Amino acid sequence: MSLAGKKTLGVAMVGYAFMGAAHSQAWRTVHRAFDVPVVPEMKVLYGRTRDAAEAAAGKLGWAQAGTDWREVLGRDDVDIVDICTPGDTHAEIAIAALAAGKHVLCEKPLANTVQEAEEMVAAARAARERGVRAMVGFNYRRTPALALARDMIAAGRLGRIAHVRAQYLQDWIVDPEFPLVWRLRKESAGSGALGDIGAHIIDLTQFVTGQRLTGVSALTETFVKERPLPSAATGLSGTGSTEKGAVTVDDAALFFGRLDGGGLASFEATRFATGRKNAMRIEVNGSTGSLAFDFEFMNELHFYDGTEPAAEAGFRRILVTEPDHPYIGAWWPPGHGLGYEHTFTHEIRDFLLAVESGTDPAPSFEDGLGIQRVLAAVQDSAESRSLWVDIPLT
Amino acid sequence: MSLAGKKTLGVAMVGYAFMGAAHSQAWRTVHRAFDVPVVPEMKVLYGRTRDAAEAAAGKLGWAQAGTDWREVLGRDDVDIVDICTPGDTHAEIAIAALAAGKHVLCEKPLANTVQEAEEMVAAARAARERGVRAMVGFNYRRTPALALARDMIAAGRLGRIAHVRAQYLQDWIVDPEFPLVWRLRKESAGSGALGDIGAHIIDLTQFVTGQRLTGVSALTETFVKERPLPSAATGLSGTGSTEKGAVTVDDAALFFGRLDGGGLASFEATRFATGRKNAMRIEVNGSTGSLAFDFEFMNELHFYDGTEPAAEAGFRRILVTEPDHPYIGAWWPPGHGLGYEHTFTHEIRDFLLAVESGTDPAPSFEDGLGIQRVLAAVQDSAESRSLWVDIPLT
Amino acid sequence: MSLAGKKTLGVAMVGYAFMGAAHSQAWRTVHRAFDVPVVPEMKVLYGRTRDAAEAAAGKLGWAQAGTDWREVLGRDDVDIVDICTPGDTHAEIAIAALAAGKHVLCEKPLANTVQEAEEMVAAARAARERGVRAMVGFNYRRTPALALARDMIAAGRLGRIAHVRAQYLQDWIVDPEFPLVWRLRKESAGSGALGDIGAHIIDLTQFVTGQRLTGVSALTETFVKERPLPSAATGLSGTGSTEKGAVTVDDAALFFGRLDGGGLASFEATRFATGRKNAMRIEVNGSTGSLAFDFEFMNELHFYDGTEPAAEAGFRRILVTEPDHPYIGAWWPPGHGLGYEHTFTHEIRDFLLAVESGTDPAPSFEDGLGIQRVLAAVQDSAESRSLWVDIPLT
Amino acid sequence: MSLAGKKTLGVAMVGYAFMGAAHSQAWRTVHRAFDVPVVPEMKVLYGRTRDAAEAAAGKLGWAQAGTDWREVLGRDDVDIVDICTPGDTHAEIAIAALAAGKHVLCEKPLANTVQEAEEMVAAARAARERGVRAMVGFNYRRTPALALARDMIAAGRLGRIAHVRAQYLQDWIVDPEFPLVWRLRKESAGSGALGDIGAHIIDLTQFVTGQRLTGVSALTETFVKERPLPSAATGLSGTGSTEKGAVTVDDAALFFGRLDGGGLASFEATRFATGRKNAMRIEVNGSTGSLAFDFEFMNELHFYDGTEPAAEAGFRRILVTEPDHPYIGAWWPPGHGLGYEHTFTHEIRDFLLAVESGTDPAPSFEDGLGIQRVLAAVQDSAESRSLWVDIPLT
Repeated sequence: MSLAGKKTLGVAMVGYAFMGAAHSQAWRTVHRAFDVPVVPEMKVLYGRTRDAAEAAAGKLGWAQAGTDWREVLGRDDVDIVDICTPGDTHAEIAIAALAAGKHVLCEKPLANTVQEAEEMVAAARAARERGVRAMVGFNYRRTPALALARDMIAAGRLGRIAHVRAQYLQDWIVDPEFPLVWRLRKESAGSGALGDIGAHIIDLTQFVTGQRLTGVSALTETFVKERPLPSAATGLSGTGSTEKGAVTVDDAALFFGRLDGGGLASFEATRFATGRKNAMRIEVNGSTGSLAFDFEFMNELHFYDGTEPAAEAGFRRILVTEPDHPYIGAWWPPGHGLGYEHTFTHEIRDFLLAVESGTDPAPSFEDGLGIQRVLAAVQDSAESRSLWVDIPLT
Repeated sequence: MSLAGKKTLGVAMVGYAFMGAAHSQAWRTVHRAFDVPVVPEMKVLYGRTRDAAEAAAGKLGWAQAGTDWREVLGRDDVDIVDICTPGDTHAEIAIAALAAGKHVLCEKPLANTVQEAEEMVAAARAARERGVRAMVGFNYRRTPALALARDMIAAGRLGRIAHVRAQYLQDWIVDPEFPLVWRLRKESAGSGALGDIGAHIIDLTQFVTGQRLTGVSALTETFVKERPLPSAATGLSGTGSTEKGAVTVDDAALFFGRLDGGGLASFEATRFATGRKNAMRIEVNGSTGSLAFDFEFMNELHFYDGTEPAAEAGFRRILVTEPDHPYIGAWWPPGHGLGYEHTFTHEIRDFLLAVESGTDPAPSFEDGLGIQRVLAAVQDSAESRSLWVDIPLT
Repeated sequence: MSLAGKKTLGVAMVGYAFMGAAHSQAWRTVHRAFDVPVVPEMKVLYGRTRDAAEAAAGKLGWAQAGTDWREVLGRDDVDIVDICTPGDTHAEIAIAALAAGKHVLCEKPLANTVQEAEEMVAAARAARERGVRAMVGFNYRRTPALALARDMIAAGRLGRIAHVRAQYLQDWIVDPEFPLVWRLRKESAGSGALGDIGAHIIDLTQFVTGQRLTGVSALTETFVKERPLPSAATGLSGTGSTEKGAVTVDDAALFFGRLDGGGLASFEATRFATGRKNAMRIEVNGSTGSLAFDFEFMNELHFYDGTEPAAEAGFRRILVTEPDHPYIGAWWPPGHGLGYEHTFTHEIRDFLLAVESGTDPAPSFEDGLGIQRVLAAVQDSAESRSLWVDIPLT
Repeated sequence: MSLAGKKTLGVAMVGYAFMGAAHSQAWRTVHRAFDVPVVPEMKVLYGRTRDAAEAAAGKLGWAQAGTDWREVLGRDDVDIVDICTPGDTHAEIAIAALAAGKHVLCEKPLANTVQEAEEMVAAARAARERGVRAMVGFNYRRTPALALARDMIAAGRLGRIAHVRAQYLQDWIVDPEFPLVWRLRKESAGSGALGDIGAHIIDLTQFVTGQRLTGVSALTETFVKERPLPSAATGLSGTGSTEKGAVTVDDAALFFGRLDGGGLASFEATRFATGRKNAMRIEVNGSTGSLAFDFEFMNELHFYDGTEPAAEAGFRRILVTEPDHPYIGAWWPPGHGLGYEHTFTHEIRDFLLAVESGTDPAPSFEDGLGIQRVLAAVQDSAESRSLWVDIPLT
């Protein structure tokens, strides 16, 4: 299938660090792997400093670099704005881009506060009326194994759901000398493990089960209260790394809640689980079966079919690399696994399909707001001796 | 090493169902495998009905059968009373036996209420003054892998503990037609998943870490509110199995708490985790390492040594079958695993060693009371919209 | 079910080391766990030295000890002789015991040579005419997971078998200073890894598939050619442990062969697989499914059902602890695993059932001879530059 | 690091099917992820038919398409020829391209016969004199976990190697109705499972251990002797799929051999291992440690450190996603795994580094010839009743 003659859409990206690199790989690859109806053109990357932005643009495959993202609002050759910055800038960029008629893909969490998220939803709704699309980037939904899990639950394979057990375990700040980076400051990151990785397992729980959390009880902790300030990257006066600053976000968040289908869900998000590198795990137990997943083994989904005779039943490891599995047809033969970056390629594929077909991509900004409300309820409960906090579903 | 000339101790057992069979296997085996200083003599088994008690005594290897356990109080040939009945009878039997100068091994949970447990502790303290010993049977402590975990943590291999993640997952009552057995009635069992299996993971958390829970927040649920009454085993009036009765205990209990060393612990006990048969799991994350265990793989302990270079670090599966491992020297060569029943043989070995050496066995009735207080706090919190409940440590 | 009034059979055991301890545990337990029609009475244990034999008898639960096994031939109170000695004495003891009308359970391998095995088969056939039974102790067949594997293959769940992949990996003599024990001397052990552990995977391959090996090609190796002589346990002349002696058996044996159903089988038996403690593994691939097993995880059987839709197929871990699984009904609830020693309890249960019902137990001495012929063919091929050696099936 | 001003090298690719797609992804990505000294320019793709070649070129990112690969010999803008065709055309293309001064990357196996491979080696040697480089594409060497395994063995972590256990298990032709594609015909593929996947595990064994095979004994089998002819892709007379043709290659190959360091190695390559999708496995046992790998879990390496105390030793799962691991620094944070395609990106990165630095890339054509000789020895032995065949090392 030739790309010749296919429609193109211009793309701008704001931010170029971890998420920027991952998104760029996806923008470069999506039309090479999938038969998408439009071909993205990587027009411009925006960063704070010119040298760094230009180096990143060259390396990552963007035609130009810029330092003022507002410039994009007036560019006719840009149709899509991809926001890969820290959470405190999401609202401003997304609202302006949508107002300018750009489709927006915004990294998660949608915002740092419920109020910002509500304003973004309002902007997305107004844009939708004009055929402009907005999506929040919970990329893990596009892990083939998790997309399969959702499909199996939607098809009724698990029956009535009693339990969800979700964990996101990392260990990258166990060392108390690890510096006070932006992800450890409330003003830039909003929250700590909770918003960064807890948001993912909240989204996955709701995505995989098709249900919503109706309330939570929570406990949070900051194990290391002060950390060295990060060294100045450049400049005369040196690093300053002997000074310390207060950690203003949580290191770990534990919470449990109820699903609107009657089940219970437990959550744990932490950056202090020594030895767990990216253990985003979810297990769902239903009346007729169970599913279990761990991102450290991202090509596997474990399924227990409770309708089999007891003597032959068991958790089976489905290697999610078959042509029949979600997204896999575009890739390699069975047993030839995918990696982390593929989740972004799949996300952008789905985004492009939605944009081109004039439908709303998922997760929507409304979905992102829903998660923001769960995050806020968790923080409220944690500040109120774990007292139960109801979550409004509207 | 011959048994000839060794001192013997007479043993009586009350109850002969699941726990009775497991304990009998241990009483028959302990001196065959271990070099214990005393040899148990299985004198008498007590049950409610003569025929059943006699059949059980013959099958399980007890010299006699009886129907009135009070008879044991006056028997000089019985030194030890082993209580394997449901929780509502523990206090009466244990207190009487201790008063009569019998050493007591009592199945867990110690009692159905904090008040009963306090009375049992008082009886055990009085007995201790007279050299009479009391122990509560949290057998899982004697799983070699868990004894090893305790030793490794005590030796400082994990550093400062940030997280405990404990689960006890079963699925034997997922079917709503499963009958209303005694374990599902508050008057006999005290609580449901909470006291039956939740008690084990509370004990293990405290045993393995050497720390105590200082407070909890909890959520419980009874998914199936009514179940068929069990058929009458004998008698005129038939089975009645089409009638239903109310389930008066929890099907699942979720809670989290704080440890007195500053860490967080999360717990989940459920009988609704389809496909999980006896998944008693515990993971401990410390500043320099982690340990993970699942009873479905009882001969394995997973250890992450955070002091290794990052390029070579990883969770290692320690096959806990080496002569250097706790209890293993008595058994088979490396790689020849043990089973569930061995936990009881180890428990009774430790009990006999304590009795003979005149020291207090662990877990003591005080330990059992401590767990009872955690169970009560969990229930209090669950009844108060998950509000935090502090646990008195004395 | 009471044991009262049940018929009893007297048992004598020859040898009391590793196998003797394991068999004793089984003789003590079999009627306590299973509803066997006869109750074994542990009459007498024979060893080479009086003190050791008496200590062992006391410890292991035998009523008497003796030093001359020939004495058993005239004892009317002994019905069964259980042979747990090294392989070089099997033939003499078994033939004499069968001639004296004793049922015989003989440890594997049946003998050290094909000729001895043939003589034992002749004795067993003659005894069979008189209602006297003989069985060779390939205990691993009685692992519930492997009995289940056999049942599933016999039921056609795997279709036509293409591959068997069998390994028995240990590491207990990797250290070149490990002494020259009897298992490392040809005159006592017959062969090394080949006969000791290779025999088990040959038996399992044939047992599980129901097929026979028709020929093999082989390679053997002795990595450590000389080892320290073992210290004299007692006596004047001291230990001699600085002297070395030649290792006269293989450390490792690799071979592959053809099955009479058209499939291929590969085998590896070694004591030099560092880190593998008792990894007796077998995988069977058929046209419609596969099974995999590893004794280090003895309570699990992995099954791939190739008839499922590709999107849901996967190797499933069957936890072989359900009441419907072979042998499990006698034991504990689901998820409460068994250990190594249970394989012997199951073996003796099946032996008693056969003896009492007047049928032939399996594996028979003929089966043991068949395995001896495979072992001999392996050695022949290994000595002939791996040239293929056919195996007579009669 | 900007790409601006970097030297570029023009690349041509011959073939565009499975390997062509994987290589294209790598050519597009290598300079985006790695800081390579030269930037590849994807000039032209050659295929047999114009339409298909043009569609593939557009999809995969090549600037042009052509149908006659010989055209490349005269193109000054092409510096590298990447050969992704079936094995029967490798020799002709590679020899011509090298003669024309093009660096060559040739897919494995190097050729279909030893003689072709020898001619290719001669061409590579002549080209090397002129600074022209040749590499054979055993991509799996560039799996980070396997590169780590090689490094650990080279550093002496395993001591003296006793065993290699290598398997490559797939199941894609278990169905006898699977058609007679080119990989099942000797004239195009040279051999079956042996050359296609067996070649990989031979290379890995030698790569990881740094040792060479000195001889082998082998057994091969074709389970399904006839298969339906593939439908004609185009043409008047229809598909012909009801006709059958003879399968002229092996379905499975088993062999074992000796390494020049004194160890033993066993191999199994099959396409009939139901449920195993791409289980390329290797385990190495040395005197002080062991390593194990399975490509179905490509981000993990299992390491047993035999120098640890027995009570704490165990196979550890190293998640090979740390910045210190081979190739990983270019990618994502710990725990964010890579996929199959990354092996090619790493391969091409190493190829570009070698080309630019004027050193010889590995594996060389000489390495490819060495593997060809092992493949030939396997076939010889299999045709001679498994008789041992020595392998010349020169």
